[in-house]
Amino acid sequence: MCKACDYTIHGAQHHFGWDNSIAPALRAEPGSTILFHCNDSSAGQLGPSSTVADVVSLDFGKINPVSGPIYIEGAEPGDAVKVTIESFAPRVFDGAGFGWTANIPGFGLLADQFTEPALKVWKYDPNSMAPALWSDQGCVPLKPFAGTIGNALAEPGLHSVVPPRRVGGNLDIRDLNAGTTLYLPVEVAGALFSVGDTHAAQGDGEVCGTAIESPMDVVLTLDLVKGAHLKTPRFTTPGPVTRHLDAKGYEVTTGIGPDLMTAARDAVANMIDLLTATHGMAAVDAYMLVSTCGDLRISEIVDMPNWVVSFFFPRCVFE
Amino acid sequence: MCKACDYTIHGAQHHFGWDNSIAPALRAEPGSTILFHCNDSSAGQLGPSSTVADVVSLDFGKINPVSGPIYIEGAEPGDAVKVTIESFAPRVFDGAGFGWTANIPGFGLLADQFTEPALKVWKYDPNSMAPALWSDQGCVPLKPFAGTIGNALAEPGLHSVVPPRRVGGNLDIRDLNAGTTLYLPVEVAGALFSVGDTHAAQGDGEVCGTAIESPMDVVLTLDLVKGAHLKTPRFTTPGPVTRHLDAKGYEVTTGIGPDLMTAARDAVANMIDLLTATHGMAAVDAYMLVSTCGDLRISEIVDMPNWVVSFFFPRCVFE
Repeated sequence: MCKACDYTIHGAQHHFGWDNSIAPALRAEPGSTILFHCNDSSAGQLGPSSTVADVVSLDFGKINPVSGPIYIEGAEPGDAVKVTIESFAPRVFDGAGFGWTANIPGFGLLADQFTEPALKVWKYDPNSMAPALWSDQGCVPLKPFAGTIGNALAEPGLHSVVPPRRVGGNLDIRDLNAGTTLYLPVEVAGALFSVGDTHAAQGDGEVCGTAIESPMDVVLTLDLVKGAHLKTPRFTTPGPVTRHLDAKGYEVTTGIGPDLMTAARDAVANMIDLLTATHGMAAVDAYMLVSTCGDLRISEIVDMPNWVVSFFFPRCVFE
Repeated sequence: MCKACDYTIHGAQHHFGWDNSIAPALRAEPGSTILFHCNDSSAGQLGPSSTVADVVSLDFGKINPVSGPIYIEGAEPGDAVKVTIESFAPRVFDGAGFGWTANIPGFGLLADQFTEPALKVWKYDPNSMAPALWSDQGCVPLKPFAGTIGNALAEPGLHSVVPPRRVGGNLDIRDLNAGTTLYLPVEVAGALFSVGDTHAAQGDGEVCGTAIESPMDVVLTLDLVKGAHLKTPRFTTPGPVTRHLDAKGYEVTTGIGPDLMTAARDAVANMIDLLTATHGMAAVDAYMLVSTCGDLRISEIVDMPNWVVSFFFPRCVFE
């Protein structure tokens, strides 16, 4: 429940994919504050008692539902939706927050190296949001956000929800947390804004393809900036973005070469090698773990012809 | 002067490019602590009174000198050099630290968009290392490191110093600061380690191609890890890496698409547009400024076929 909210979008008010012909779930004035009951990215196909068999049988036609769309009165192409991200509240299952991280065959940065399905089910304190137990070896700090947040595209027809686009969508930007202000380009009348794919934590890159996927209630205030003519989404954070992770420093691996994608793959593979060697974990477990808390950064992109991508793993996880 | 140092490598003991036939400046036992008087990346061609005309007349045969090489006794191919980064002390000119940032035509992430030379000369307090004045609009926090640090390659002959390689070199990794431990693959007997290209500050990416380029004294302890069989450099930081920048949060722009390089270019160009619109600065000034403090991060690299690169500009610069 949200006392300050003007409207509520219920869990059933979701859609799969972006299509500007989908009827709005709500027409709202700019400045409205809205509570969205967001589903997790499996649309409830995975739950606290799921096993890896449930990953194998996932129906990919029901992946990544987004709640909405919201028709914002007065929004026109060329405007921007100003999204004030107010709060996240995980859905509670038997007193606990729930999340899942999976290796889904065919999906993820190292899909060629990790071909077997795997699943980690997380349980965490939805009130304190204290770091979530990974194993007896460590915990992952939480910082919730919505992985998918965007507007409808100008192009007619149904567009897959998987790729993000200039109007936003499946951005998976880890720092779109409570307190942040996001600006999204508008391409159709009313903007047709939707949100979903809530994550309790993720590293920059989301390297295995999934984060800590958790159903959550999200409160957003939607406003308009007329004539913003924004090319792609931008946002403003009110303060630091990595302090949940950085207190103990980082282990960092690198990838170096003329292709950023190859360098990123090398940096992540080198980190998996390091963690399996130093912590005795299975490689696929290291892959899923680093997806929830490891950060891909471009250290240099100018020293021709070789670039450096670094992968930062927060040492607090094991300390 | 360094009381705890076993050896000193003077400013003249430098070389241009990597070549495993260059005679060692020093043979040292593992565990030796060495003071390096590092030149700036212009090898002294630019100084506190330089103007943009000096950028035009730079001799590129004398770019990026590195101090060394150090032959580490007992180092063999397959080992790693363990570099404990002890300290940085900027060279003092008339009581002040000196640095330069340039747009060098033909070099940099947006070289096609910024074809004219430009130069910013910095002055800072070498003792407090307080943020350096950019203009009456703001200051850039300092965090010194060595941009180029590495070992000689196995392949004979002279190799350009510009690209970093699997043995390190021009890595330009902003977080190789005092307190960090770096591991570098060894490919030749003795490792033939060199260091240079000291920077007072840089953002992840070094997008305009230069940082705050400053001559500095660097103290390093060089040790060996036998049989490490490291594929590329890795490092461990003792604590947080962005707290000099993050207190006031960030303005963030994005680039979205199927090519990471294009996405990175778009994210940086969008930030330059934002800063010129909100702060009335020339585009080339914004380009040089963000190179010293803006960070390129890969937000997601799995949502096929479009990836998201985000460029984080620290709001503390203007606050």
